[in-house]
Amino acid sequence: MTDVRFGIIGIGNIGTTHVARFERGEIAHARLVGICDSDPAALARHPHLKGWSDSAAMIASGEVDAVIISAPHYAHTPISIDALSHGLHVLVEKPLAVHQADCDRMIAAHTNPDQVFAVMFDTRTEPRYRKLRELIQSGQLGRIRRINWILTAWFRSNAYYRSSNWRATWGGEGGGMLVNQLPHDLDLFQWLFGLPQRVRAFCPIGKYHPIEVEDEVNALLEFADGSTAVLVATTGEAPGTDRREIIGDNGRVVVYPDRLEFTRTAMPTSEWNATTEKSFGGPETSLETIEIDGKGGHHTEVINAFVSTIRGEGSLIAEAAEGRASVSLANAIILSSELDRTVELPLDPATFEQWLSGKRESSTFDANAATSGGVADMSASFSS
Amino acid sequence: MTDVRFGIIGIGNIGTTHVARFERGEIAHARLVGICDSDPAALARHPHLKGWSDSAAMIASGEVDAVIISAPHYAHTPISIDALSHGLHVLVEKPLAVHQADCDRMIAAHTNPDQVFAVMFDTRTEPRYRKLRELIQSGQLGRIRRINWILTAWFRSNAYYRSSNWRATWGGEGGGMLVNQLPHDLDLFQWLFGLPQRVRAFCPIGKYHPIEVEDEVNALLEFADGSTAVLVATTGEAPGTDRREIIGDNGRVVVYPDRLEFTRTAMPTSEWNATTEKSFGGPETSLETIEIDGKGGHHTEVINAFVSTIRGEGSLIAEAAEGRASVSLANAIILSSELDRTVELPLDPATFEQWLSGKRESSTFDANAATSGGVADMSASFSS
Repeated sequence: MTDVRFGIIGIGNIGTTHVARFERGEIAHARLVGICDSDPAALARHPHLKGWSDSAAMIASGEVDAVIISAPHYAHTPISIDALSHGLHVLVEKPLAVHQADCDRMIAAHTNPDQVFAVMFDTRTEPRYRKLRELIQSGQLGRIRRINWILTAWFRSNAYYRSSNWRATWGGEGGGMLVNQLPHDLDLFQWLFGLPQRVRAFCPIGKYHPIEVEDEVNALLEFADGSTAVLVATTGEAPGTDRREIIGDNGRVVVYPDRLEFTRTAMPTSEWNATTEKSFGGPETSLETIEIDGKGGHHTEVINAFVSTIRGEGSLIAEAAEGRASVSLANAIILSSELDRTVELPLDPATFEQWLSGKRESSTFDANAATSGGVADMSASFSS
Repeated sequence: MTDVRFGIIGIGNIGTTHVARFERGEIAHARLVGICDSDPAALARHPHLKGWSDSAAMIASGEVDAVIISAPHYAHTPISIDALSHGLHVLVEKPLAVHQADCDRMIAAHTNPDQVFAVMFDTRTEPRYRKLRELIQSGQLGRIRRINWILTAWFRSNAYYRSSNWRATWGGEGGGMLVNQLPHDLDLFQWLFGLPQRVRAFCPIGKYHPIEVEDEVNALLEFADGSTAVLVATTGEAPGTDRREIIGDNGRVVVYPDRLEFTRTAMPTSEWNATTEKSFGGPETSLETIEIDGKGGHHTEVINAFVSTIRGEGSLIAEAAEGRASVSLANAIILSSELDRTVELPLDPATFEQWLSGKRESSTFDANAATSGGVADMSASFSS
């Protein structure tokens, strides 16, 4: 099979890193044919690549077999649907879409199983999360009872939010942290634990920055089986904390960059609880440190898996349809906060879309004044 | 001045430890005259002390100058009022009362400033919290922006909950974790940060134990100035976590048993945020470890301070009136959870009392079948 011919649509911060991945030769059996951006300056930064100013023209050109869509969030839906309808393979940046109804439209447009449709959940490639998932799925951690995720290592400055006028607006981006910084964490969450049944959240708007959307998330999640989770995230505090604590009937796992600390109970906590005559103090515990080697292949691994799948030689890190769950969770969290009430999952897609369209109408975002604002140094933003 | 003559009312788990404190000679300028408990077996365990089966008789006897009230929670209010009306000095175990209306009745009964009326917030004696309060009040931490308290090192077994039939019932104890295990933490919280304005909470009922009240607390708190807090606590998980993280404009403090880790920012985060041209990454930080010496005098220090104040020689660790704030917070948290809505502070005392009386009516607690259930080994329950 010949190399897969790629186009990248949206050459902003993240799209630029994808161009570089191809140029460094990190993507096997693939060739970057061209790029697409409505901003001529973005194209001019890569003069050796064919440039399209319009995604429809690139998609219809017959010159590309596959596209990576790294355009602003709302554009994921129409561009994906257009590319799928032209028979292309599609890899969409996170989030799959801004809201569930758009996810459903994209998933419905994927009718040909020979076309590969994937979403960029590169965090799933991290060995620490793969190991954690193994501990959960193998039953070693026991029934999950409580999850506490503190995710505040997402500092963003006012300069970041000023860098493009679509950023951090209901009209341009469709929300704040939940649609920009947190999709990976929300995907990991649902990939590890599934989706909760009920959400109570409080997401302050512009707490740290002059923006119209949330820059902090506090969410209480309740699962059908009674287990609970707390999710806390901000883009405004220094130093940031990344602490993920999962408590099962057989102990607690805390996730660190280089290790998992699994404190195992000598017997299941529920059994101790039911049988001990002691009033205070739980079962004995012992700490097991699980060393983690490496940080995972991230975007490069996701794109290579996409190519392998197209070539019939591999499987995806995340199919596009799997991207819907984290969008559901994000939608439920912001809706709970904004309506100041508990929200149940599954959430009706049309109800949320209608609510969001009200926010879009009152948004400060002016599509006619859109700026792409150049490219920031992404090295402090993610692992690879 | 002669030694202060003490009576202890309520000789259960904690009252028994107070008896021992006097017997070990830890309380200066004071003498334990007698004890009071409705259970003859409790009195029989201390045959060398005068025993009363009725608190009113002890209070009216003229034989004691001061009482420590360690009876079940609902009894705090009538016994305190009775003792104050007889001119006695009163030290009440936490919580001051089950609900705000009872707190108000107790505070209103304290009309004579020569009588000392105190509440047992012994955790305030811990050097780590005193140092933390100093960091906050001196402004070193900057404006507080977010607080994350995970308090799950409160394991209690089913045997604990069975040990007395008033335990963990709406009728007997007035609630679960919030009125039994958490009063100290809620007091520390309000002592450090003040009270929030709004509370959204989810407190599962009997998640880990067969009880009719909450054994887990998840609360999102919002202060008038926009700062936020998340409070998580359970009596059901092993190993427990005690992690308190406070983020101010000048950095983050994490509280450990033997140290505070203060990660200071090189400039205030808000200033960095407003002035940097970088998109990602916050201000530089440096870790300062503040070693903490000792664990504090706890109950013994509180009782000695009470005696000193009676003798005109010292000041209280916590005046009774200060005990109202943590009760307000506990009441708001459980009400938010049970009504499934955001609750604003200040909360109307009568509204809450009425809601609680509905819970008491449906409680499984049978006052006529009350058992005190002997005394458990408290050594695993608190520090000293």
